[in-house]
Amino acid sequence: MISVVILGAGNVASHLYRGFREADNVTVSQWYNRSLDSISEHSNEVDITDDLSNLKVADVYILAVSDDAIAELSEQLPFEDRVVVHTSGGVGVYDLDKKHRRGVLYPLQSFTKGAELDFANVPMCIETIYKDSYPMLKELALSLGGPIQKVNSDQRRVLHLAAVFVNNFTNQLYRIGHEITESEGAEFDILKPLILETAKKIEHLSPFRAQTGPAKRHDKKTIKKHLKILDNNIEHKKIYELLTASIQKTHGRKKL
Amino acid sequence: MISVVILGAGNVASHLYRGFREADNVTVSQWYNRSLDSISEHSNEVDITDDLSNLKVADVYILAVSDDAIAELSEQLPFEDRVVVHTSGGVGVYDLDKKHRRGVLYPLQSFTKGAELDFANVPMCIETIYKDSYPMLKELALSLGGPIQKVNSDQRRVLHLAAVFVNNFTNQLYRIGHEITESEGAEFDILKPLILETAKKIEHLSPFRAQTGPAKRHDKKTIKKHLKILDNNIEHKKIYELLTASIQKTHGRKKL
Repeated sequence: MISVVILGAGNVASHLYRGFREADNVTVSQWYNRSLDSISEHSNEVDITDDLSNLKVADVYILAVSDDAIAELSEQLPFEDRVVVHTSGGVGVYDLDKKHRRGVLYPLQSFTKGAELDFANVPMCIETIYKDSYPMLKELALSLGGPIQKVNSDQRRVLHLAAVFVNNFTNQLYRIGHEITESEGAEFDILKPLILETAKKIEHLSPFRAQTGPAKRHDKKTIKKHLKILDNNIEHKKIYELLTASIQKTHGRKKL
Repeated sequence: MISVVILGAGNVASHLYRGFREADNVTVSQWYNRSLDSISEHSNEVDITDDLSNLKVADVYILAVSDDAIAELSEQLPFEDRVVVHTSGGVGVYDLDKKHRRGVLYPLQSFTKGAELDFANVPMCIETIYKDSYPMLKELALSLGGPIQKVNSDQRRVLHLAAVFVNNFTNQLYRIGHEITESEGAEFDILKPLILETAKKIEHLSPFRAQTGPAKRHDKKTIKKHLKILDNNIEHKKIYELLTASIQKTHGRKKL
């Protein structure tokens, strides 16, 4: 049985709390937050505290706090030589205070407050400085039921960056699609099956092979028509031009 | 029973052929292509021809050919005053020869050769010039089992443009994610659950409300780190900057 103390009360902390509560071989011994308000509703299930000097001894301390708070909180922990991990994609493992056996448990998924999340769909990226903390972190990550991946700092950094492209930027393209359709009173909803199909297609096909459309075909007539529609929105037009050029760079010149 | 003649042998033509063959109230009377090679394997199921002067009388003629071929093929059809539709998102309904009762049946989905496609997930956009052709085209579209939508030319135009954003451009973001992860030997595959979640999220949440991440949070530290990683790829960096600016324009200044 792995004992865990969770620190923080945001989306990741709350989802991890629930995930570990449901895991067979993990026990959440304590939940810390600097304010008890956000976690007090769980006080009948778990020991809660807002006092770092009251922290229990545990196998792992999970700092699921905002990026900016990680370094300072890790410093304030009143013990050393224990396994302390943060959950951020964008913060270095060395940002944790060096008195700890440091590591990272980075859930590569988009967490929405209140929304149900199946951990089977949450890949856990594990990074450790000392090899001997890996087996336990691996067991901990596996207990959530999703895929796990051992990564180094560079890999975690690029995964975090790539996640911004495939999640935040993709979502912004959906938003632009929404704006474009609404400009003529068309229904954005009828694009949803296409959106889902686009995401599903790459389960079995590389994005390279899955590509279609006017940019890849070098269909100048259609591209010209589209740019004309976008004449009234210079930002959308720039994004159209840049992504069209990017597709054409990836796929090369038109075959004659 | 609606009788249909399909013209063309590309992805859309092939999928429509299969879709209509399975529909209860539709019969495919004939399949035309300028070369019989691509459709000859179906000669025991349907009458096939490569001769326009042999075309049978039918309720609807569906020109599922490349955009550039639509106008000319519609001109060459040796009859008039029959319902003739094309299936393109990007071509005007008036590009069809005016001797016909013109319309468009635009399937708003990405068709991949050989891949199975469930028409339940293919919204059919219907456009007609004459009101009296609408009821039959509606019945025809409904027979495929997916959602249908009556659109005008402007709406079809923006839907086609929006489809490029949410399909081709999104797929290119996946491709960039692939390149970025591979640059450090990380696995692109562990981004796939996030990709699927991003697409599924907007089933019930607008893209506006679904947005998260460093751009929306105005998290300058993370953005700076990401741009530094992208220093070796000026195109990707430009796309990062442009989409970050787009998100920030959509979501406004950071709340203090």
